[in-house]
Amino acid sequence: MRAAPSLDALVHALQRLPGVGPRSAQRMAYHLLQHDREGAQLLSAALTAAVQRMGHCRLCHTFTEGEICPVCADPTRDATRLAVVETPADQAALERSGAFHGRYFVLMGRISPLDGIGAADIGAAELMQRASDGVVREVILATNFTAEGEATAHLLGEALRSRGLAVTRLARGVPAGSELEYVDLGTIAHALAARR
Amino acid sequence: MRAAPSLDALVHALQRLPGVGPRSAQRMAYHLLQHDREGAQLLSAALTAAVQRMGHCRLCHTFTEGEICPVCADPTRDATRLAVVETPADQAALERSGAFHGRYFVLMGRISPLDGIGAADIGAAELMQRASDGVVREVILATNFTAEGEATAHLLGEALRSRGLAVTRLARGVPAGSELEYVDLGTIAHALAARR
Repeated sequence: MRAAPSLDALVHALQRLPGVGPRSAQRMAYHLLQHDREGAQLLSAALTAAVQRMGHCRLCHTFTEGEICPVCADPTRDATRLAVVETPADQAALERSGAFHGRYFVLMGRISPLDGIGAADIGAAELMQRASDGVVREVILATNFTAEGEATAHLLGEALRSRGLAVTRLARGVPAGSELEYVDLGTIAHALAARR
Repeated sequence: MRAAPSLDALVHALQRLPGVGPRSAQRMAYHLLQHDREGAQLLSAALTAAVQRMGHCRLCHTFTEGEICPVCADPTRDATRLAVVETPADQAALERSGAFHGRYFVLMGRISPLDGIGAADIGAAELMQRASDGVVREVILATNFTAEGEATAHLLGEALRSRGLAVTRLARGVPAGSELEYVDLGTIAHALAARR
């Protein structure tokens, strides 16, 4: 009874979005066609434009429209410090803190053997080259404090240290504003061990 | 520090999808640009095609690419019975049951004063016209058994009955395969009152 191949195709294509299954894809398609055709056209154009224009910064691998991203191009940033983060969202979080004035290397992922993501997929070789430019003095590993982020930090740290670079990791401890009663035990144990 | 207007535009456009907030829109945009540019292009094309090709069936209002949907065009369907449903998904559920062989009228919504959706928005006038074609003998109100679906059924039922049409509602009762212990009290009360 289907005579709506373009609707079926849209429901199918929406499922390429992470976290969107058949039911929510159908709901999205109905919503756009029934209530927001302008939004559908806007999204279509935005997808095409982003795919055409967005590339990766030649120096730090983050998304950018030019050859080099604004952070890498900014001469006022401290070129001796390089923070390694997993994603542009993590980079944005560090930027918001206002506490880091160096440059970045964005892995665009993390090592995850179960998903078949190895060192080559996160640009480990490019990071080694970037960190060995003779200007970088300290590499700050700011990958997430998840199992995969920790494994990534460990592996990259080993390789960077073997090249004679100073490697640090973001400190683990009790988050600002939190009450000890509600902090998980692993975090308290780390904060105790790293007390000063 | 943003030099990625096309990325910002994509994140913004993705938020037109129902249930997608700023964080998931960002995650979707990163995923498409990093891992699935082919999916992004596919989705862009599917959106444009669907908006261009999908219209509403002249008779039953469901989504269709032609002027009349396959169900309305099928001469083997019982033209004397008309089921009124809220959405194409509800229509599909009735079709899957295999128990209905009549035709449909798809409201493409339900009356919801709080959302500013009134009788005109769900094509009540078109339904009256459709049901008064001299062929339809029975209108089966198959809107959902939610507060809004019930209100919609009540309002449409009154109007249809005043035109001398036979109006029925899907039976309420204990769902097939369920154990009484786990059925909600309202459903049990309805099933008791409608016992036969």
